[in-house]
Amino acid sequence: MTGRLEAQFAFLNEADKLKQVLRATTLADGSRRENSGEHSWHLALYAMVLADQAAPGVSIDRVLRMLILHDLVEIDVGDVPIHSANGAAHGSAETVAAEAAAADRIFGLLPADLGADLRALWEEFEAAESPDAVFAKALDRVQPVMHNIESGGGTWISYNVTAEQLEARVGTKVARGAPALWDWVRGRTRAFFDGRA
Amino acid sequence: MTGRLEAQFAFLNEADKLKQVLRATTLADGSRRENSGEHSWHLALYAMVLADQAAPGVSIDRVLRMLILHDLVEIDVGDVPIHSANGAAHGSAETVAAEAAAADRIFGLLPADLGADLRALWEEFEAAESPDAVFAKALDRVQPVMHNIESGGGTWISYNVTAEQLEARVGTKVARGAPALWDWVRGRTRAFFDGRA
Ligand SMILES: [Ca+2]
Repeated sequence: MTGRLEAQFAFLNEADKLKQVLRATTLADGSRRENSGEHSWHLALYAMVLADQAAPGVSIDRVLRMLILHDLVEIDVGDVPIHSANGAAHGSAETVAAEAAAADRIFGLLPADLGADLRALWEEFEAAESPDAVFAKALDRVQPVMHNIESGGGTWISYNVTAEQLEARVGTKVARGAPALWDWVRGRTRAFFDGRA
Repeated sequence: MTGRLEAQFAFLNEADKLKQVLRATTLADGSRRENSGEHSWHLALYAMVLADQAAPGVSIDRVLRMLILHDLVEIDVGDVPIHSANGAAHGSAETVAAEAAAADRIFGLLPADLGADLRALWEEFEAAESPDAVFAKALDRVQPVMHNIESGGGTWISYNVTAEQLEARVGTKVARGAPALWDWVRGRTRAFFDGRA
């Protein structure tokens, strides 16, 4: 048992580093960049509060677990902003390979049984095929949109994003998991994009 | 439905402020103070990883939800460090009343059904009576201990804490929800306290 706790805390102490990974997106008030630890917390709260936007059969309990661990690989790889490199860096073969190596290292700190469970959840999230993963991904995409709305543009300004690019890179993925939610949020983005057109 | 989403996002945007509430405890590497948003995320990960330390019958799914929202009242009240005022500020009548008023305001932003559900979970956590709450509280108490161990003393130095005070203020509460865990962690604290005796 002692060896097991040793491994569990090696992982939990390593995970602490996610609080030092900075994202492109700021807090809602624009005062500073958000880190990936607090972002993961906020998404878990999104899942609890927006559960009524999920498709029938989605397990919010599994969505919560996915969201809590979905960004851990960023400890090694960093955050790859969705609008960076004109939308091409996110999901590139290089990023995917680096994230898999990070998952080997980080989930490998855990006792084998637990590491396998958590890694399987992370892979399910990344695959974005199961209804739980599709809903979790929708929340991960919609939260930065809300922060850009609240802060008056945020990364849409720094990456010079158009309404069409937002729809293609973000909207389609939110709509896949939560169509009514995207309808409503898209309406909230109009003031910003109409003002720039 | 639109009015409902309006209320859901009023709450989620307000919750973002928890990322600006600073705790006494630092990150594990001592580099800066931890905020209550990222702390809540870390505790949720603790619950996933240390689930095997919970008493039979504890629902980790409910523990996760409690931990995700347990600190929201700090948006209004701030964090009250466990070792501050020689251990007397935490749980004082003033703090309890201020936290109840904060819960009225913050959970009151939500649609009434959802606000009542989340508030009930927060009250269950605060009451620290149900097995789920007792385990959630144990994790909330043990994480700062790990950070003090990792960073070489942390708040034990700033508040001049003795091994006996740690046992009374923290150890008894961790042991109540996770006795084997506290046995192990107490052992890890010895190097620090023996060095000071
Ligand atoms: Ca806490």
